[in-house]
Amino acid sequence: MAPPTPKLIVSIDLKKKPSEQVLPLHNRWHPEIPPVAEVKTGEMFRVEMVDWTGGAIKDDNSATDVKYVDLSTVHYLSGPIRVVDKEGTPAKPGDLLAVEICNLGPLPGDEWGFTAIFDRENGGGFLTDHFPCATKAIWYFEGIYAYSPHIPGVRFPGLTHPGIIGTAPSAELLDIWNKRERELEETGHQSMKLCEVLHTRPLANLPSTKGCHLGKIQGKTAEWERIANEAARTIPGRENGGNCDIKNLSRGSKIYLPVFVEGANFSTGDMHFSQGDGEVSFCGAIEMSGFLELRCEIIRGGMKEYLTPMGPTPLHVNPIFEIGPVEPRFSEWLVFEGISVDESGRQHYLDASIAYKRAVLNAIDYLSRFGYTKEQVYLLLSCCPCEGRISGIVDAPNAVATLAIPTAIFDQDIRPKASKLPVGPRLVRNPNIPQCTYDGNLPTTKNPCASS
Amino acid sequence: MAPPTPKLIVSIDLKKKPSEQVLPLHNRWHPEIPPVAEVKTGEMFRVEMVDWTGGAIKDDNSATDVKYVDLSTVHYLSGPIRVVDKEGTPAKPGDLLAVEICNLGPLPGDEWGFTAIFDRENGGGFLTDHFPCATKAIWYFEGIYAYSPHIPGVRFPGLTHPGIIGTAPSAELLDIWNKRERELEETGHQSMKLCEVLHTRPLANLPSTKGCHLGKIQGKTAEWERIANEAARTIPGRENGGNCDIKNLSRGSKIYLPVFVEGANFSTGDMHFSQGDGEVSFCGAIEMSGFLELRCEIIRGGMKEYLTPMGPTPLHVNPIFEIGPVEPRFSEWLVFEGISVDESGRQHYLDASIAYKRAVLNAIDYLSRFGYTKEQVYLLLSCCPCEGRISGIVDAPNAVATLAIPTAIFDQDIRPKASKLPVGPRLVRNPNIPQCTYDGNLPTTKNPCASS
Amino acid sequence: MAPPTPKLIVSIDLKKKPSEQVLPLHNRWHPEIPPVAEVKTGEMFRVEMVDWTGGAIKDDNSATDVKYVDLSTVHYLSGPIRVVDKEGTPAKPGDLLAVEICNLGPLPGDEWGFTAIFDRENGGGFLTDHFPCATKAIWYFEGIYAYSPHIPGVRFPGLTHPGIIGTAPSAELLDIWNKRERELEETGHQSMKLCEVLHTRPLANLPSTKGCHLGKIQGKTAEWERIANEAARTIPGRENGGNCDIKNLSRGSKIYLPVFVEGANFSTGDMHFSQGDGEVSFCGAIEMSGFLELRCEIIRGGMKEYLTPMGPTPLHVNPIFEIGPVEPRFSEWLVFEGISVDESGRQHYLDASIAYKRAVLNAIDYLSRFGYTKEQVYLLLSCCPCEGRISGIVDAPNAVATLAIPTAIFDQDIRPKASKLPVGPRLVRNPNIPQCTYDGNLPTTKNPCASS
Amino acid sequence: MAPPTPKLIVSIDLKKKPSEQVLPLHNRWHPEIPPVAEVKTGEMFRVEMVDWTGGAIKDDNSATDVKYVDLSTVHYLSGPIRVVDKEGTPAKPGDLLAVEICNLGPLPGDEWGFTAIFDRENGGGFLTDHFPCATKAIWYFEGIYAYSPHIPGVRFPGLTHPGIIGTAPSAELLDIWNKRERELEETGHQSMKLCEVLHTRPLANLPSTKGCHLGKIQGKTAEWERIANEAARTIPGRENGGNCDIKNLSRGSKIYLPVFVEGANFSTGDMHFSQGDGEVSFCGAIEMSGFLELRCEIIRGGMKEYLTPMGPTPLHVNPIFEIGPVEPRFSEWLVFEGISVDESGRQHYLDASIAYKRAVLNAIDYLSRFGYTKEQVYLLLSCCPCEGRISGIVDAPNAVATLAIPTAIFDQDIRPKASKLPVGPRLVRNPNIPQCTYDGNLPTTKNPCASS
Repeated sequence: MAPPTPKLIVSIDLKKKPSEQVLPLHNRWHPEIPPVAEVKTGEMFRVEMVDWTGGAIKDDNSATDVKYVDLSTVHYLSGPIRVVDKEGTPAKPGDLLAVEICNLGPLPGDEWGFTAIFDRENGGGFLTDHFPCATKAIWYFEGIYAYSPHIPGVRFPGLTHPGIIGTAPSAELLDIWNKRERELEETGHQSMKLCEVLHTRPLANLPSTKGCHLGKIQGKTAEWERIANEAARTIPGRENGGNCDIKNLSRGSKIYLPVFVEGANFSTGDMHFSQGDGEVSFCGAIEMSGFLELRCEIIRGGMKEYLTPMGPTPLHVNPIFEIGPVEPRFSEWLVFEGISVDESGRQHYLDASIAYKRAVLNAIDYLSRFGYTKEQVYLLLSCCPCEGRISGIVDAPNAVATLAIPTAIFDQDIRPKASKLPVGPRLVRNPNIPQCTYDGNLPTTKNPCASS
Repeated sequence: MAPPTPKLIVSIDLKKKPSEQVLPLHNRWHPEIPPVAEVKTGEMFRVEMVDWTGGAIKDDNSATDVKYVDLSTVHYLSGPIRVVDKEGTPAKPGDLLAVEICNLGPLPGDEWGFTAIFDRENGGGFLTDHFPCATKAIWYFEGIYAYSPHIPGVRFPGLTHPGIIGTAPSAELLDIWNKRERELEETGHQSMKLCEVLHTRPLANLPSTKGCHLGKIQGKTAEWERIANEAARTIPGRENGGNCDIKNLSRGSKIYLPVFVEGANFSTGDMHFSQGDGEVSFCGAIEMSGFLELRCEIIRGGMKEYLTPMGPTPLHVNPIFEIGPVEPRFSEWLVFEGISVDESGRQHYLDASIAYKRAVLNAIDYLSRFGYTKEQVYLLLSCCPCEGRISGIVDAPNAVATLAIPTAIFDQDIRPKASKLPVGPRLVRNPNIPQCTYDGNLPTTKNPCASS
Repeated sequence: MAPPTPKLIVSIDLKKKPSEQVLPLHNRWHPEIPPVAEVKTGEMFRVEMVDWTGGAIKDDNSATDVKYVDLSTVHYLSGPIRVVDKEGTPAKPGDLLAVEICNLGPLPGDEWGFTAIFDRENGGGFLTDHFPCATKAIWYFEGIYAYSPHIPGVRFPGLTHPGIIGTAPSAELLDIWNKRERELEETGHQSMKLCEVLHTRPLANLPSTKGCHLGKIQGKTAEWERIANEAARTIPGRENGGNCDIKNLSRGSKIYLPVFVEGANFSTGDMHFSQGDGEVSFCGAIEMSGFLELRCEIIRGGMKEYLTPMGPTPLHVNPIFEIGPVEPRFSEWLVFEGISVDESGRQHYLDASIAYKRAVLNAIDYLSRFGYTKEQVYLLLSCCPCEGRISGIVDAPNAVATLAIPTAIFDQDIRPKASKLPVGPRLVRNPNIPQCTYDGNLPTTKNPCASS
Repeated sequence: MAPPTPKLIVSIDLKKKPSEQVLPLHNRWHPEIPPVAEVKTGEMFRVEMVDWTGGAIKDDNSATDVKYVDLSTVHYLSGPIRVVDKEGTPAKPGDLLAVEICNLGPLPGDEWGFTAIFDRENGGGFLTDHFPCATKAIWYFEGIYAYSPHIPGVRFPGLTHPGIIGTAPSAELLDIWNKRERELEETGHQSMKLCEVLHTRPLANLPSTKGCHLGKIQGKTAEWERIANEAARTIPGRENGGNCDIKNLSRGSKIYLPVFVEGANFSTGDMHFSQGDGEVSFCGAIEMSGFLELRCEIIRGGMKEYLTPMGPTPLHVNPIFEIGPVEPRFSEWLVFEGISVDESGRQHYLDASIAYKRAVLNAIDYLSRFGYTKEQVYLLLSCCPCEGRISGIVDAPNAVATLAIPTAIFDQDIRPKASKLPVGPRLVRNPNIPQCTYDGNLPTTKNPCASS
């Protein structure tokens, strides 16, 4: 009588490379990538996935793999998965695809993950101007908890979630993406003042054949070339969902994705054991391989019924998410604030990105007083369950952003106290976090008045 | 034996105007505004305050008061309050002032508040280009709950907090503020691309004698003129705390404020019964008069010990906050996402402000399908306990911001469903929210593809 | 436009004795006690109350007042309050009275409370055979928090609630009460084996004229005598609600009380700043004076519609309660277990009372290893927000009860550790808790194998 | 570098009977049952287990299997597991064994469970005098959620936990158990008044060879006979932990068990997908097969350091539990109350068992008004995450117990309302819950005044 165990529709063999898996993976968005599996609404199914780098980052004590990682090949996605209703009619453009996350976790036998700071010349991150060196922390899992030999004294329950889940774009939507991102790439450095303050480069990752995987479209044919030159990179979240990095999409959550092509053809990947809001170091979640157990529903005509185009076409929409009742509970939070004044003292206008940058910098410096290097804190704030909030966005000229950190994840009391900080060697901390040199020639931003 | 009842150090007579109160209020930041009261560390004391407009907005069915409100006179602050330790030695520059919020609430006999959208020509707000008309909603309180005759079908517990709490700046810090904000005001329209998308004007509010209240410095003397021309406006949060609008600073919270002048001279005001992250409509919290019961500690030398200058001087710091265990609990959230593509379809670079704007617009349109006007939803999202998150800030070019709304505040199920939305008149909703016309000549931003 | 501020219908003057208040208080349940006020459904109103002893326990360092307290005069109740609907029709027998707690707290100027262990000869308590001496702890409030000079190192947010809220019984219901309690009192020591293990005496408190207050029925008339001899004591909770001591009935809660007499005539009193499940030391909450802001609704015919008689008459019902979203959040709990084997090693059959007794004894002994006397812990577990659960009630012969204590209320880590307990004087604790001698001649139960 | 995946030390083959598993299971407590595996402190390991009946209850539409289940063979336990420290020294009597639950869940491929009411002649339950018929509900799992085809309209996240975890008793402790339980069995019906009200029979389950499984001690030898005649049944929780049924012992919890024999020799079984406090229907959790991932620590000498004997010997102790931050969050609860007056109207003295019985009966009758049969509600309250509290245990003669039910688990609003209950067929409910007849001749307790 019982419903069958979730059927495994995409399986991963961790002993093989991403390109050698039985069902081929893909790392681009394009309407013509054929589905690798089909599911019916209502049935539970299981999808396995490699970590976002496909195994390029190792469980070792060197950050060299991070420094030289080939970012043209990420993210390896499992799918596309075609969705049909109980009568076999596929999801259609204009429908809404509701995907419920029934269960998820690391792949058995692979219970570890990594968090990294990319080299400024190869990936960067939110604070790459301050922290240009490739750095890595390994995390091990004990059931719901993660701990790191590289960042001692913290342990926290994971709010595990897939970083990427999205439907295939239509040709029209793909064209919109490519145009607007190309325009930014071409004109951004001149017209976009934020680039001066947030240094990640390039501004956008345009389609390229280098490192491209297109799933079942294989071999270097002319068709492959054409599609590879059109297919969107997976880095940014977009209208189809994609790399949303919403840290709360864990067990019991539901994702309402717009459908742009017949069958919906959704893909997923980039599993995170845990992530902080913003995923600030870029490779900032606890990245791992993993599995998802999912169930789909189709809301016929749901795009028109529920989604709102906020742009020139009916395709300019965003998914909706529903978050369930099972999250780690924390009682007490220490909150750092940032305002939209940058490190040079310059006033920016209601800029939440700059305000958040400053809140994160404040938190890093503060926590570095408790026995950590700043890189350790930067990595920690990337992956622990901290909350990044837009607290005030109307009090011109200052946006106010806050970063709230649950105090319970530390094995010491990190709150300010009237008694001085303990002096002398009180906590044995590990300064030997794997790190490389920065060999580029861009200047490092300094806080002239900050500690060290 | 018991400690005495908190002593009332600033009392408010609601029958009098702000300028007629026994202890004079002030609405500017300046080191020379004399304290009106002194407290010792450890003792509990009570501070009362008028609402941020000093009674200009009435509990009635017209938004005319909102449209023509004189924003040069806000925010009326209670204080400054001088803090000394048990030996009578005052707080000193470089110390940290820890202020614990022991209790707070509306003033007895004044249990109501308001939320408003300002006219685009007089105040504006985060979405002023979409919603240019002055609009008002009145809220009534039933203990911890608020409800509004103008926005039927919602009721929620308040996370009551003071919008403003801050210490007096030193002359040097004040000078830093005035310079950087003047520079923005003078050059912003040219160089700050964000102004094209976030339309609130002016870019900054520079010091002005108009509407200026300086507490005990009274009379239109030359000294008054000088100080009024130097004293910073209260709109933005800054290094001294000020208008932080952090919605979680409720009972049991602690605020660690840097001390810039002898005695700390902190002031507070702008009580909010409840606010959503971002306070998007600007007059967006449930604004009210109120009281605070506070207790202070001095952490000697705490600025150097705990705060990090993120800028060219040791004064470029931000307060730290601690949040306690007593907040309303919500189990389920509906989450709207925005990416940094604006309504014209243009791609912006990692801009969290634009991403959040789009998330809010998505939520407004969505909820308007459940029996509300868009203005009602805009007001609701300004003041209900919704959470604004920076979910992804590294996946160039798109920042991803999210707005999470607790589903339990509604008297209907607002989640998407496979069954169509109910048709026909199913909920008696009140469309008669007080609203004025917009008489300016700026164009209103439209979503060509959105529902009406 | 705003609804008026809650009208004050019962006011208390703390400078006067309970018997001198303008509106007379009462300390018995009887249908003929006349209402002192009338409220309409929907309107908010305010009720003030004395503490349950009417000021007999003082804020000082002696437990003599506890030892000799006159328990015949407790609990002083405010009311009865008659409830009518908007048309003026009173609540009627068979209706359900929904009372919403909109706000509550200590009376301004009286922000302190007490927790006490009664002398075994005068009141007793759940563990009176172990702890026969009158003992007292004073608590002071800092907004939502309580701390005690007598139990150092703990501080917790209060879940403030009225210990007593109930409607007037009908003559028929009162008769049922008096009969069944008299039967217990007369036959209990023979037939009720639980009395051997739970030693509180008397078994029941039957009506008596001693210490009796009947509100507006005053003077020692024959009518007063008759009613005093019929009127039920307030100690136990019963069908009308009464002394339920449900610790979660705080802001935002709703109580559905059965109506037995015209007007409902409900009364309330015995405010608790905080209480642990079970209120084990009897005078075990943080007892205080206080105020309630309430709002009533009448559910016509609601007793039949919603309540279930579990006994021989339709009057054998119990109220229903609804608990709201605003409670202190705790993340981590240390849990003590008890089974239904008593201290002599004797097996009892599925007896949750004995199992809970053992869980509490286990917790007391455990926590006494962290710098406290056992009496301090007994008092603490009576009043802190600990949870008493019936975990298993079917696994014959052992009931399993648990007591869960939030670890965050302590200023030290109270969890078991592989490293030994710290030795030597590590925490300065106050052993000088006010305590009297026990002058009775009943033996004290000892745990021969327990620590000291 | 990563720690190895948890090693599987007890594996279950669901296609085989309990007695055919590779590592033999056991269903008694005895010091001489040899360990089947050994683990080192610090290492993670995995234990699989059958459901408590070893597969006797089927996923079908008949309750016949429940009616005739052989209770002499339950509970099948996995283990004993011997624990040694990193040097290989085993845990010793007097130590404390800390077992952390890192992960747990249903066995893959077996994602379903059952909840049952036993026949009054074969098992009974907390309310067996009211509900004498064997009844069964099947539950299916969708990730963290459970739903039942037999109890429509509810769905809730599981707080999955092992019902049984305990260490092997020493011969001395075993002797204490057998003596006290035999005494109860022999004298109980005369001296224990609670038996009149709580009807589960037998009063205790004494050792018996029938259905006995002793792990590696196999074959019907004289030694087997001796041990089988001494070995304690697993039904009640006792000093060694055992069948505690504490519903919160889920991921992230820690259990501190006393060690009575060398190696600790702990066993575990009886996995519950979810359970309500009290597990009232006896087979009341959602019973299933499952796995645990565990990690052990030894606290040397911890029994003396941390546990308190509450009885005549140092063995009269109870385990301690620690509960972690990951539980489903619920915001709103409907609470039912019971007092210690039984269904005949008779007053009992501070009896929490009777008070809880009445609270459960009140809840069952109430919820049966919303489209359910009473048996459906009885089953639901046995297994959903409801909380059973001892609210007042001192207000003689009435103990007050409460049962709090999270309102969010229902698909309809179950709160009382001034508007009448909906009439007519409004919800399609399934009355076809599998149920057998009761063929015994004991009278069924009726509530003469209750609904139907």
